Amino acid sequence: MTKRMAKRAAAISPFHVMDILAQAKQLQSQGQDIIHMEVGEPDFDTPEPIVEAGVKALKAGKTHYTPALGLPELREAIANWYQDYYQLDISPERIVVTPGASGALLLVMGALLEQGEKVMLADPGYPCNRHFARFVEGDINAVPVTAASNYQLTADHIEQHWDDKTSLALLASPSNPTGTVLSKEELELLSNAVKQKQGTLVVDEIYHGLTYDGFKATSALAIDAQTFVINSFSKFFGMTGWRLGWLVVPEGYTEVMDKLAQNLYLAAPTMSQYAALAAFKQNALDVLEQRRQVFQQRRDALLPALKQLGFTLPVTPQGAFYLYADCSKLLNDKVPDSMALSRYLLKEAGVAITPGLDFGNFQAEHHCRFAYTTSEERLLEAAERVGQTIKRFS
Amino acid sequence: MTKRMAKRAAAISPFHVMDILAQAKQLQSQGQDIIHMEVGEPDFDTPEPIVEAGVKALKAGKTHYTPALGLPELREAIANWYQDYYQLDISPERIVVTPGASGALLLVMGALLEQGEKVMLADPGYPCNRHFARFVEGDINAVPVTAASNYQLTADHIEQHWDDKTSLALLASPSNPTGTVLSKEELELLSNAVKQKQGTLVVDEIYHGLTYDGFKATSALAIDAQTFVINSFSKFFGMTGWRLGWLVVPEGYTEVMDKLAQNLYLAAPTMSQYAALAAFKQNALDVLEQRRQVFQQRRDALLPALKQLGFTLPVTPQGAFYLYADCSKLLNDKVPDSMALSRYLLKEAGVAITPGLDFGNFQAEHHCRFAYTTSEERLLEAAERVGQTIKRFS
Ligand SMILES: Cc1ncc(COP(=O)(O)O)c(C=O)c1O
Ligand SMILES: Cc1ncc(COP(=O)(O)O)c(C=O)c1O
Repeated sequence: MTKRMAKRAAAISPFHVMDILAQAKQLQSQGQDIIHMEVGEPDFDTPEPIVEAGVKALKAGKTHYTPALGLPELREAIANWYQDYYQLDISPERIVVTPGASGALLLVMGALLEQGEKVMLADPGYPCNRHFARFVEGDINAVPVTAASNYQLTADHIEQHWDDKTSLALLASPSNPTGTVLSKEELELLSNAVKQKQGTLVVDEIYHGLTYDGFKATSALAIDAQTFVINSFSKFFGMTGWRLGWLVVPEGYTEVMDKLAQNLYLAAPTMSQYAALAAFKQNALDVLEQRRQVFQQRRDALLPALKQLGFTLPVTPQGAFYLYADCSKLLNDKVPDSMALSRYLLKEAGVAITPGLDFGNFQAEHHCRFAYTTSEERLLEAAERVGQTIKRFS
Repeated sequence: MTKRMAKRAAAISPFHVMDILAQAKQLQSQGQDIIHMEVGEPDFDTPEPIVEAGVKALKAGKTHYTPALGLPELREAIANWYQDYYQLDISPERIVVTPGASGALLLVMGALLEQGEKVMLADPGYPCNRHFARFVEGDINAVPVTAASNYQLTADHIEQHWDDKTSLALLASPSNPTGTVLSKEELELLSNAVKQKQGTLVVDEIYHGLTYDGFKATSALAIDAQTFVINSFSKFFGMTGWRLGWLVVPEGYTEVMDKLAQNLYLAAPTMSQYAALAAFKQNALDVLEQRRQVFQQRRDALLPALKQLGFTLPVTPQGAFYLYADCSKLLNDKVPDSMALSRYLLKEAGVAITPGLDFGNFQAEHHCRFAYTTSEERLLEAAERVGQTIKRFS
């Protein structure tokens, strides 16, 4: 009997970082100290006031299903957030509460991407995107991006790479893995370019809130109400494990998302939704602002340290908690690519990072991602250890 | 500009019960008392010991992502459950923790159903199944079932209805909406029939634990280790809002499920996973056993009451918390089908039920589902009110 496996599933290659993680675990179990710079989530626990709200909800018996679109009061609170944070007027009717940005990506692809159609996106980019497209028997149109465009798609890319089969463009600002942010002007040009192609724009704003140097990311909703915007409580709000996000849809799309949600996942976790009501309150926002500043300090410590080690980082990313570094200068016969480098640094320096191949194919062998989701002290220790290790092989 | 909408999304018709719900809400806001018998979840809150474990986890900072396959200790606890409850030896390696049975259905369809292939299932059945199939560009092969086969598929059905495009068979025992349970012998025959067709069997065991008359459902895992089994903490364990379930896969399938989970939803909610560790402890199981007995009492009260009202229920279902009733005898020119009856009973009797159309097409106009997820007192009051109402129109 042959093993049954749908092509879409067989086609998924495992994340390379999983190898690194398994190896790291083994080393740790042998007593080695590992500095984790591969982790794509804040090291901070969820802020106390949010946890407290979750606890209160549980104790009050908030353990049943909610409506598929989310608690009405949470949809309202998110709409208010657009008013308070962005000065944007968004009707709660357009807010769909989801199980993470992941749930929002599932809804968007399911509702918009026809079988055989393609989503344009940047390479490097968030690795799950291509699998969401493939899951619904669509595909991607991956456009190589470099430091020259801040590792983001541009209107020119849209112009050059759009084809008959492409119907959606998916941006992420700030980006994972590069941390770079689109300006309002760039977003406008992109939005227009996509519109010219009769395409639909989807923007993943999951790292909004985590921006530095006094910079604040513009929401794509400020530019065009026809854009689909994905967001989450995972990153800025520090709620990864709660599995809660949201989607803002153009008017007229709430019903189809409701139907998809009712069938695919019924509703987002109830206690998480109640907890999230506390995330927009001042006491939680104060904690989050402090953490934002800590992330900025870490970036400011890690970036020059990596440069000094011989990594090339042509741009200073203004968001998220990642540095995407070109490691070309550090490669040699013994350590020929970023995967080998990741393995080597883990083994020899006890530092775990993510190889570029997890984010796409373009120049992936020469890049890796450092997440500054551990303390500044540990980051600098990591840099120190990497430095010692590199000396030995270069 | 035409509105972009993928065919798979446009094809989903809304649940008819949503109409009923909206109407019920409106009536309630006008002060009318509505008895809810349309709700597919236990009315009980999650048992105290489970809630306490969730609270403890939250306070201990268990707010980060878990591994995509779930916490190792929960996978182990679920494996132990198979030992304790079913006397089955299942390796934790074969357990995949999911965001509800919904998440498990998504994984199974994504991993197994090739584009264009069909899943055989019973009509009436759980309405989301067909949309999971359609979501990955597959389809269903819906087989009409009647009281004659206990509203379940049989080996004969497999024999007669299997075709070239069918690759999976999906059973649910106990079933939603009928509450009927497959015996061990029936499961064996079904398993063999599917194997003869080179098909793969998937069994949704989400209502396991909720069985009556001293009857205990056999897990399909007792029959064939090549079966995919779906389960959940939602129903028997009373944890709907926590969004937690699991999937048992044959050996060799853990990796593909891991990859799909990593891409599609990252992980199930963390606090839910910690809470669920307490679900298998004796103090929680004691509460659940009491509730099971309450459900049985309710069934035993409601079933004769519905029969007396003129509903036809040829079989006494031994599981879940649903009665699937033929309402043919109650229909007339004014109330011609089950949808009209549902609307009528809501308006005139303040009783909300689910019309058959939500569970399929076969004889759906003559059937409706009563959920006994409210107190016996309220159930009997509902029967009383329905009786008064029926008198008026028949
Ligand atoms: C760009 C991006 N989008 C979406 C997600 C999914 O996050 P979640 O489902 O936790 O909201 C992530 C997580 O790393 C991400 O980096
Ligand atoms: C037969 C059946 N399967 C699966 C589900 C999904 O449940 P959950 O995702 O809450 O585990 C339900 C919920 O009603 C159901 O009745």
